[in-house]
Amino acid sequence: MREALPPGSTIGILGAGQLGRMLAAAASQLGFKCRIYSDVPGPASDVAVSTTIGAYEDLDKIAKFAAETDVVTYEFENVPVEAAAAVQRVRPVRPGLKALEVAQDRLKEKQFVASLGLPIAPFAAVAGPADFAAAMASVGVPSILKTRRMGYDGKGQAWLRTDNCLPRGFEIIGEAPATLEALVRFKFEVSVLLVRSIDGEVRTYDIPQNHHDGGILRTSTVPCVLPPAHQARARDIAGKIAEALDYVGVIGVEMFYVGEGPEPLLINEFAPRVHNSGHWTMDACAVGQFENHIRAVAGWPLGPTDRHSDCQMTNLIGDDVHAWPNLAAEANACLHLYGKHQARPGRKMGHVNRLSPAGKGR
Amino acid sequence: MREALPPGSTIGILGAGQLGRMLAAAASQLGFKCRIYSDVPGPASDVAVSTTIGAYEDLDKIAKFAAETDVVTYEFENVPVEAAAAVQRVRPVRPGLKALEVAQDRLKEKQFVASLGLPIAPFAAVAGPADFAAAMASVGVPSILKTRRMGYDGKGQAWLRTDNCLPRGFEIIGEAPATLEALVRFKFEVSVLLVRSIDGEVRTYDIPQNHHDGGILRTSTVPCVLPPAHQARARDIAGKIAEALDYVGVIGVEMFYVGEGPEPLLINEFAPRVHNSGHWTMDACAVGQFENHIRAVAGWPLGPTDRHSDCQMTNLIGDDVHAWPNLAAEANACLHLYGKHQARPGRKMGHVNRLSPAGKGR
Repeated sequence: MREALPPGSTIGILGAGQLGRMLAAAASQLGFKCRIYSDVPGPASDVAVSTTIGAYEDLDKIAKFAAETDVVTYEFENVPVEAAAAVQRVRPVRPGLKALEVAQDRLKEKQFVASLGLPIAPFAAVAGPADFAAAMASVGVPSILKTRRMGYDGKGQAWLRTDNCLPRGFEIIGEAPATLEALVRFKFEVSVLLVRSIDGEVRTYDIPQNHHDGGILRTSTVPCVLPPAHQARARDIAGKIAEALDYVGVIGVEMFYVGEGPEPLLINEFAPRVHNSGHWTMDACAVGQFENHIRAVAGWPLGPTDRHSDCQMTNLIGDDVHAWPNLAAEANACLHLYGKHQARPGRKMGHVNRLSPAGKGR
Repeated sequence: MREALPPGSTIGILGAGQLGRMLAAAASQLGFKCRIYSDVPGPASDVAVSTTIGAYEDLDKIAKFAAETDVVTYEFENVPVEAAAAVQRVRPVRPGLKALEVAQDRLKEKQFVASLGLPIAPFAAVAGPADFAAAMASVGVPSILKTRRMGYDGKGQAWLRTDNCLPRGFEIIGEAPATLEALVRFKFEVSVLLVRSIDGEVRTYDIPQNHHDGGILRTSTVPCVLPPAHQARARDIAGKIAEALDYVGVIGVEMFYVGEGPEPLLINEFAPRVHNSGHWTMDACAVGQFENHIRAVAGWPLGPTDRHSDCQMTNLIGDDVHAWPNLAAEANACLHLYGKHQARPGRKMGHVNRLSPAGKGR
């Protein structure tokens, strides 16, 4: 084991959202302290020893922040690469810059996946109107036009159903550089939550089946009905991505299950961080994704990824959170609230992990 | 459900030790913020929004602290009652003052237990040499002389084996007011971790069997071999104590198992707080003792106390903590480190929860 940070060390987190909050709570369990850097205040600060509010473009401030830590990670993939590079001049950044660079640009991500020979739906770059004809010729409809950058939870997307609606779609997404992606007919979506250690050891959690609603993840359920051979293929795909990125930490790789055939799965996208579809691991596993991410970035041995219970994770979105008194009273429901002030529509306010079977003992 | 604090509320904690740290982490999961008040810095501050360092005798400072919270709890039973009373003039204190007052004085505790008609070993007050003869006549040897106040983890105790060694024992414990307690021959020690809600609902966790070494808890194991009827009696005893104290939160009641007979169990002592022998609940239950304590003090519904796995909790005391790299690499071991700087002898530095069976799924 090289470079393992001793307990008492400080982990820096870029971003102050709920993922940072849950990372910080997991880090505390291992005896670490966390410091947060973010451009906006957020709920992670409640469980951190300090928070620096600053722009991600303020590289001096970021370097000063980094100097007060022993290692730095990030909780969202849209951290500017320059900010991560500024950290890296002072302290290690894990997962690395490459994961960030690739994952925050949808076109680069797809080109990267394709370059590894991994299965992906047809796609084309749409930088502007000059690309419309070629993109439509190679991808066609039905398809989805997505901004290359900053899209998440269904934002920055336009669905194309007719040959001539690309110009209108481009308008809808704000005329930003985009990718056109063939709409895949799939049975369901799954994701692989994989953690890779600093020494290249890889472990994966059980594969959840994910259900989206309005572009936002609604539920993740384990076990899923994916046949064992296809589960193995899914893990294999995620492992190849992690290795090619020389990845350290938890990565979430979303895949469409298209069914029997030479390629049962197509990669949708990956997130170089702990992932919403892995929140069930917090309560159904001895060591959840947040702790395993912290272990990896701290250079520790990975924890077990075994599951002791079946679980369905349900996101609490917007006003859903107002049901907390009922959820708190529900048997075998593990409630997680993120401490956000306002329940705006579409905002992830918490999640609930429903475990089964009910338990043992008396 | 009356008086439930909404997520986003602030919980004050008197004390900054590892119990406060684990309470604060659990509170964050439910969307709460925590503020700490302590006379010395401690590891709870790493996961709290603020820490006030002040004497427990500085009642103005404590009142100011309380005003910045919505409810206050405590993580150790030696908080001066005056300090808790100062809080109570401003905000609710849970568990209440009575629990504190009784539990921090060994003589009051024993008199309280006896007044409820609950089983307890013979004891006598030893305020000074004037009490020696009477105490020895009623309790005899073998027995243990324990200071009435501030004893924990085997500190402030003297074992008496001969009729004439009470004076020497009294010297050893610093001539502080004490109780003389008959040494009970028991098979093993168990404890009941009970949580009581603001509405008087009571739930108990599975009963662990506890093993001490040098006066310090070493392991707690579930399930224990206590026969079912005796488990029921143990829960019944703990319930009577909690009800008599109008208790809100988690209480840990330690009992000696003396075996078959009209009273299979004798109460050793109770702690009006989350308890070391309940640390296994963090990983073997959907809702652990820390979360259930927070739920109770916040006026929330209690969480399930079912256990999904067998578990043995082992304390990491002093230099034990230096084994963390091996413990981190151990399968099915959930490692908890408290973020304390120095591994002094006898100091609780962390604990490890070893789960079985290993897990399900793949």
